[in-house]
Amino acid sequence: MEVKEMFDEKLSRRGLLKGAVGATGIAALAYGGLGLFSNAEAKSGVPEKWPWPYVKLDPEKTAELAYNEWYRVFCGAAVISSVFSQLRDKVGEPYTSFPVDAFIFLEGGMVGWGTICGSNAGANIVSNVIIGPRIAGPECENGAAIGADVLEWYSETALPTFTPKEPRIKTPIIQTTSNSPLCHISVGKWMKASGYAIGSPERRDRCARVTASVAYNLVADLNAWKDGTYKQKSTWKAASNVGITSQQNCTECHGANVPSPPSAKK
Amino acid sequence: MEVKEMFDEKLSRRGLLKGAVGATGIAALAYGGLGLFSNAEAKSGVPEKWPWPYVKLDPEKTAELAYNEWYRVFCGAAVISSVFSQLRDKVGEPYTSFPVDAFIFLEGGMVGWGTICGSNAGANIVSNVIIGPRIAGPECENGAAIGADVLEWYSETALPTFTPKEPRIKTPIIQTTSNSPLCHISVGKWMKASGYAIGSPERRDRCARVTASVAYNLVADLNAWKDGTYKQKSTWKAASNVGITSQQNCTECHGANVPSPPSAKK
Repeated sequence: MEVKEMFDEKLSRRGLLKGAVGATGIAALAYGGLGLFSNAEAKSGVPEKWPWPYVKLDPEKTAELAYNEWYRVFCGAAVISSVFSQLRDKVGEPYTSFPVDAFIFLEGGMVGWGTICGSNAGANIVSNVIIGPRIAGPECENGAAIGADVLEWYSETALPTFTPKEPRIKTPIIQTTSNSPLCHISVGKWMKASGYAIGSPERRDRCARVTASVAYNLVADLNAWKDGTYKQKSTWKAASNVGITSQQNCTECHGANVPSPPSAKK
Repeated sequence: MEVKEMFDEKLSRRGLLKGAVGATGIAALAYGGLGLFSNAEAKSGVPEKWPWPYVKLDPEKTAELAYNEWYRVFCGAAVISSVFSQLRDKVGEPYTSFPVDAFIFLEGGMVGWGTICGSNAGANIVSNVIIGPRIAGPECENGAAIGADVLEWYSETALPTFTPKEPRIKTPIIQTTSNSPLCHISVGKWMKASGYAIGSPERRDRCARVTASVAYNLVADLNAWKDGTYKQKSTWKAASNVGITSQQNCTECHGANVPSPPSAKK
């Protein structure tokens, strides 16, 4: 079956493709080079150790923190702050030294360019900084696994799922499904459905609630990981599934003409 | 003039749109809320101070480090490591405590999903962690400004620009211009032009060289900032220019039907 046919056949069954390959760890996510390393000795010789000490957090409280922090540091840094501010209080270092506010630049899909939604980037930073990179050993692969789960959950879910106790906007905020982890697509589909402009208080509160929703979901996974009950939910492994790094719904941008990536080994 | 007409008119003049608004600082990049804050007191009450101590680095040496680090930690973490490993040696803390290797997850446009190229994300992390977030004061706006410059330079430049002294692949690596900061588009255009598959040694070495090119360019800007001669080059302010976070070449994905974002104030 051609790649394009595989896409269309799958898309006809389901809005967002699921990978054809089962999930057994996240090794196949690594499109670079696999199995080359067994430690996490940083280039400078400074040992980096994982996992960082983690204590279980209340998802509801974390989401409330993220919602309010959005109005201070926006999507990416708000997710990081909602988790790390609590761990600074409960654990201290190494969280105290992590420069949370520097990650404001994740706003607007990275300095306004509309790429990855900052809440997704922030959640991936949190899970990978706490649990560690895959080269630090098999037990650390859960950092990237939880990050990948965030991207898939975000893409498939009608967002926002979280409503704060004291919302700044009292009127209902409609939910939309992005089918993408990108800011531009997520915000654009919501703007189209709601009719609200980018600078409106409603759009801003929608993004604050999306940020809170991601933080809630992230902490639920981190708590499961701490309990030893976490299992990866996402199955998308782009490089091995379709021969290129990508999302799963190729036809949304490419239309009927989904390119076939070169596959010949040269 | 309609937004779509503006796009097409500009696209006809130039492959990649330039913003219609001049650059005076990066405040307009912030699509969230402007002018609300004047300090960088983190949520937990831990003071975060910027800028971090920076000493000028050799761009050529940094690029060589990034090239070789790509084969250990891949695009995003390789850019961070190429700068921070040198600053760990020359400065020490706070660089020593920054968990460089955790950022391997940026590979493949974030765990293989093809979103923002990891070298762009890594460069933005470096510039913003060193110089600081915009809420830490006007002098810290250069962190996001350098990050935005990276995104625009990456999109407009035939990459890779850097050739390592001892390349792992001896045959020529062709250059392609992505017109996008996204992994999927950058890698996809190179794969189409070169005919090499995602898992090929040539594609891998191309990405290692792109990572090195970004690190070289980043350090040149950081050195200029340290000298007090840095001026922002990028002018793209999506939210104010076109009413939504986005790239600049809307028609490449949208074709002729570029949606008009809602602009009415409700």
